[in-house]
Amino acid sequence: MITVSIIGGSGYTGGETLRLLLNHPMVQLNQVTSESYSGKYVHAVHPNLRGMNPKKFVSSSHLEKADLLFLCLPHGTSMNRIEEFLTIGTRIIDLSSDFRLRSKSDYPVWYQHEHSNPDYLEKAVYGVPELHRNELRKATLVTGAGCLATATILGLYPLFKSGLAKTQHIFVEAKVGSSAAGNKFNLGSHHPERSGALRSFQPTRHRHTAEVQQELSINGANPTIHFSATSTDAVRGVLSTAHLILNEDLNEKTIWKLYRQAYKTEPFIRIVKERSGIYRYPEPKILAGSNYCDVGFELDHIEKRLVILAALDNLMKGAAGNAVQAMNVMHGWDETTGLDFPGLHPI
Amino acid sequence: MITVSIIGGSGYTGGETLRLLLNHPMVQLNQVTSESYSGKYVHAVHPNLRGMNPKKFVSSSHLEKADLLFLCLPHGTSMNRIEEFLTIGTRIIDLSSDFRLRSKSDYPVWYQHEHSNPDYLEKAVYGVPELHRNELRKATLVTGAGCLATATILGLYPLFKSGLAKTQHIFVEAKVGSSAAGNKFNLGSHHPERSGALRSFQPTRHRHTAEVQQELSINGANPTIHFSATSTDAVRGVLSTAHLILNEDLNEKTIWKLYRQAYKTEPFIRIVKERSGIYRYPEPKILAGSNYCDVGFELDHIEKRLVILAALDNLMKGAAGNAVQAMNVMHGWDETTGLDFPGLHPI
Amino acid sequence: MITVSIIGGSGYTGGETLRLLLNHPMVQLNQVTSESYSGKYVHAVHPNLRGMNPKKFVSSSHLEKADLLFLCLPHGTSMNRIEEFLTIGTRIIDLSSDFRLRSKSDYPVWYQHEHSNPDYLEKAVYGVPELHRNELRKATLVTGAGCLATATILGLYPLFKSGLAKTQHIFVEAKVGSSAAGNKFNLGSHHPERSGALRSFQPTRHRHTAEVQQELSINGANPTIHFSATSTDAVRGVLSTAHLILNEDLNEKTIWKLYRQAYKTEPFIRIVKERSGIYRYPEPKILAGSNYCDVGFELDHIEKRLVILAALDNLMKGAAGNAVQAMNVMHGWDETTGLDFPGLHPI
Amino acid sequence: MITVSIIGGSGYTGGETLRLLLNHPMVQLNQVTSESYSGKYVHAVHPNLRGMNPKKFVSSSHLEKADLLFLCLPHGTSMNRIEEFLTIGTRIIDLSSDFRLRSKSDYPVWYQHEHSNPDYLEKAVYGVPELHRNELRKATLVTGAGCLATATILGLYPLFKSGLAKTQHIFVEAKVGSSAAGNKFNLGSHHPERSGALRSFQPTRHRHTAEVQQELSINGANPTIHFSATSTDAVRGVLSTAHLILNEDLNEKTIWKLYRQAYKTEPFIRIVKERSGIYRYPEPKILAGSNYCDVGFELDHIEKRLVILAALDNLMKGAAGNAVQAMNVMHGWDETTGLDFPGLHPI
Repeated sequence: MITVSIIGGSGYTGGETLRLLLNHPMVQLNQVTSESYSGKYVHAVHPNLRGMNPKKFVSSSHLEKADLLFLCLPHGTSMNRIEEFLTIGTRIIDLSSDFRLRSKSDYPVWYQHEHSNPDYLEKAVYGVPELHRNELRKATLVTGAGCLATATILGLYPLFKSGLAKTQHIFVEAKVGSSAAGNKFNLGSHHPERSGALRSFQPTRHRHTAEVQQELSINGANPTIHFSATSTDAVRGVLSTAHLILNEDLNEKTIWKLYRQAYKTEPFIRIVKERSGIYRYPEPKILAGSNYCDVGFELDHIEKRLVILAALDNLMKGAAGNAVQAMNVMHGWDETTGLDFPGLHPI
Repeated sequence: MITVSIIGGSGYTGGETLRLLLNHPMVQLNQVTSESYSGKYVHAVHPNLRGMNPKKFVSSSHLEKADLLFLCLPHGTSMNRIEEFLTIGTRIIDLSSDFRLRSKSDYPVWYQHEHSNPDYLEKAVYGVPELHRNELRKATLVTGAGCLATATILGLYPLFKSGLAKTQHIFVEAKVGSSAAGNKFNLGSHHPERSGALRSFQPTRHRHTAEVQQELSINGANPTIHFSATSTDAVRGVLSTAHLILNEDLNEKTIWKLYRQAYKTEPFIRIVKERSGIYRYPEPKILAGSNYCDVGFELDHIEKRLVILAALDNLMKGAAGNAVQAMNVMHGWDETTGLDFPGLHPI
Repeated sequence: MITVSIIGGSGYTGGETLRLLLNHPMVQLNQVTSESYSGKYVHAVHPNLRGMNPKKFVSSSHLEKADLLFLCLPHGTSMNRIEEFLTIGTRIIDLSSDFRLRSKSDYPVWYQHEHSNPDYLEKAVYGVPELHRNELRKATLVTGAGCLATATILGLYPLFKSGLAKTQHIFVEAKVGSSAAGNKFNLGSHHPERSGALRSFQPTRHRHTAEVQQELSINGANPTIHFSATSTDAVRGVLSTAHLILNEDLNEKTIWKLYRQAYKTEPFIRIVKERSGIYRYPEPKILAGSNYCDVGFELDHIEKRLVILAALDNLMKGAAGNAVQAMNVMHGWDETTGLDFPGLHPI
Repeated sequence: MITVSIIGGSGYTGGETLRLLLNHPMVQLNQVTSESYSGKYVHAVHPNLRGMNPKKFVSSSHLEKADLLFLCLPHGTSMNRIEEFLTIGTRIIDLSSDFRLRSKSDYPVWYQHEHSNPDYLEKAVYGVPELHRNELRKATLVTGAGCLATATILGLYPLFKSGLAKTQHIFVEAKVGSSAAGNKFNLGSHHPERSGALRSFQPTRHRHTAEVQQELSINGANPTIHFSATSTDAVRGVLSTAHLILNEDLNEKTIWKLYRQAYKTEPFIRIVKERSGIYRYPEPKILAGSNYCDVGFELDHIEKRLVILAALDNLMKGAAGNAVQAMNVMHGWDETTGLDFPGLHPI
């Protein structure tokens, strides 16, 4: 049993973290902060929590010490306050992008500003348990991962782990729902404009490219990730589709083995590859609320093209669920604790 | 051929009016005003018009005289500027709610403020051609009608015109898409919050109640309209469902006759009442972009309850399309001029 | 710990029951039957269960004895096989409509056929715990309730329990998502036809009317329920809106008290009535996967009209969730066991 | 003025062709055939046409001679009946895939069957006016184009026309709405399963690949098209995203010029490339009912990657609208005749 507080609990990521922690058997939830909603019940902002818990938001100026802090602040905030937070929380999981990249020179390139606290970059562990489970166990500062990056990385990881992929050009089109942009509204998120959208919002230069490139540069590989992001009408859900041309003449069985090997003991990765059926490939629709990342692939023998598909819920495995999984790893608990909701069908 | 200008052309109603007028053979479109977009191309705001016309918004301070003005301003604006506008336009169609009610005492009750120019209330003609065609021909000031009100009135009108309905309590539940609230965004219209909504936004005291009550108080009738409004996930579309208990023991054939009689020559009313099929009742889905109001009914012999269904596109027959139809009537043109798009299927 | 089997596990209700039972700590799930999918893994039909459990469907001809059977068969099936099922299961929860009505004469009226086993009608308990908790404890045959009926009944029940409502005409418009009609597809459920629908599918004579009338005829009341059902674009979710004219001059506080009194100890009823906010009234959107029925109301002082709103997930509190809650009551377990998922926001 | 008949008028493509021809000033619509609906009013199947025209379906056995036939039959039908149809219609536009490919050896590869009438393959003109305007003028047999193929081809064409692109690998992800699969329903198109879908339905080996490859093999180019198709929740609309690596170091201005040059006189191609705004890239949402194909691009200088975006309405520029445009070209009429609907905003 540990004490946990959520810093910045009024957004979508904060709300999901809160929901998961309220039902987590090893966690005593201390405080949830929000400057604008301080003094208000959390269910005023997160209506699904009505009747579950009479907790109120507090200002971050009233923060008390806790074993673990979840930082759910807007990007660019926690890098400036990380030292303050480390005096309050023994360990920290930061869900923003402030500590995701290892190299400080990547921040000006991908985020258009210098990093204000680059010393912490190398201390932070990229909190995707499937890649960094051992480092997480002892980590003090853990960083969440981008939702599109998580899907893309988990989809491609077995190819790089096994050494099959090295220097390929990989073309990725990541499709994502509206909740990934948070609860700040604007004309583009206004329902008459956004409903039914199929909208290329970042055909090039998407920030998550940097994370994907970083995490797949293993075993001597140095792939080039050509990344595009498209908005859809979904509220939750990411589908990442990656294409690469194989240098060798492989068959599906070999690839299947790599994936089995990489993921056979992973509690939240399902290899989805059926001969028939509606859900024969990964699909985010049935993952809402679940922490699964479904991964599948298809090989085109003639083109020698491999298509990798990966789906997840951007607020769960793409944010809060993954962070809770990381917390479970950090404390040596069963990794699925508090994360057993399988998703709904139909939905 | 007349000259026409649109005052307040950057909103959804203004945009639809603009689209219709650009293709109207009897209209020379002079100016489209917008204070915030003055100097910008209209297609910057109305992307469907890209490539159709290189028109730019102008400030209303540069308005020139025209034969007809469409006022597409926020509610509460045109009542203060009506005299100014009447020096610019020979005739006016105001799409706001500022001149819809005949009695000035209704404004404090339903709009929570006094009317600033009550003398014009009795001069204005309620611009639903099916009810006020003759008055429209000579009218100087025509008022548009509320989208929920238009559907409800057109659904119930034959019962009151014929004298069948008089003092009934009528329970109306009107369901409406998100575009009816215009292009002002807020947290409630933010896609993650609004997508998939089925949201009672005004279970009682909806402003359109007053219009319905006013327009159906004919032939000595004085019905009580119990009105509720519910938001749906649609962008466009209104479905009004009205329930009333019949005093007499009628059959469907009699009611059918009343509707045929009332609407047989109406170009934009279709009586939809089939024995079977998906679209056997009025449904707004297939009306997007069309100026039809589809009307149907079902009689419950045991309960003696009559259910009246009426569907329309809130931006067309519920706003801009109806206004163009009124313009056609005012000028003695074929009523369907510029309004021949039948809607899409499937959509 | 009891042994449980699901008869007819390939439909949507069967799938949700299966999902809930797989995570229920007091249940050992024995068998799930399906004739058409016999021998196939359950996740072939219910893709959200992939990786959770390697269970396969069996034919109902291989049924073994169990402490409890959930019957998730099409309407009209279990009435013919009830005696067979009672030799297999000690107790039975039937989710079809076959035992919902107490009077056999209601079946020809509302279901257009005679009941084949009317003796069981009076033995069956209508399985809504909020109304029949005590009878459920000892019941052998429990019947589920219609999803639209459940919402409407739970919305109106406090008025009838308290004796405030007696003989009123009550006008109900129930809006419902597409999963309520099950997994049998047809042209009307074909996505291009059904997407974006706002479709009056049963303006009069809906079968659930009979259940509502039956369950509210308490304390000498004999209300007339005027019921309409409308299809929406949602997959899950019911919103029932009921209107009645009060005979007395009541205020909201009095009504609030009745609802508090009726529901203060109910674990799955939330009274939702806020002054402001997006979710100030009950809304099904945020209830997907949860077993809550949210109830609210609004009083129109001038019209003396009371509007009652009730929302639920048609596959949860409207079907499988409610059945599991009934099972919990029948066995004296905490009523919320296995039903603690609060729903998602945003979704 | 010509006489026209539609063969196979009960499907979605037939319905859209019918809608367009009913309003076309140069066409006298003779017959619309359907075997299953013979004798029924066309509005029984196409409810948007209610009240527009009292036409009834006839059996194709009652076909009379006409100047032009639109064949809207299922794939694999018209290749067997083409000679019969050529005795009835002077000229033919076939909207199926039966005559799209020039090489008979492509049919077994992409359609898994031999072509039954290969002599007609070389006589048929691929009916995309932007590529084959001159050939269309004299063509007797014109073939429609695949909706995903049309978007992809029109997006990439200027690069190949200008000779800039030659042998590139091009990665294409085409996203498409549900109406593209026609009105045959199945479990996958059942609303609870399809609503909210983001579903890889053909990650490799999509049939439209062959058309794209064929039409872009000009000027000595021989590109490899790596094609994927993804289903979305939209009813109408295609968004094709193509990625290619440039061999030369180009800037956006050069590419812009190529597109301007290729499309400056095209009435239905709009180059959409804005610095800001919601609709700064092509988006199918605002194209429903319009015949536009919106084309845009973005250049990634660092990756030397060009991303080409193209959007259209799959039933309009992707099927019926394009066919009517082809008819206009074939007869020397203004190409936009009957195709002036610009699409709706918002929708």
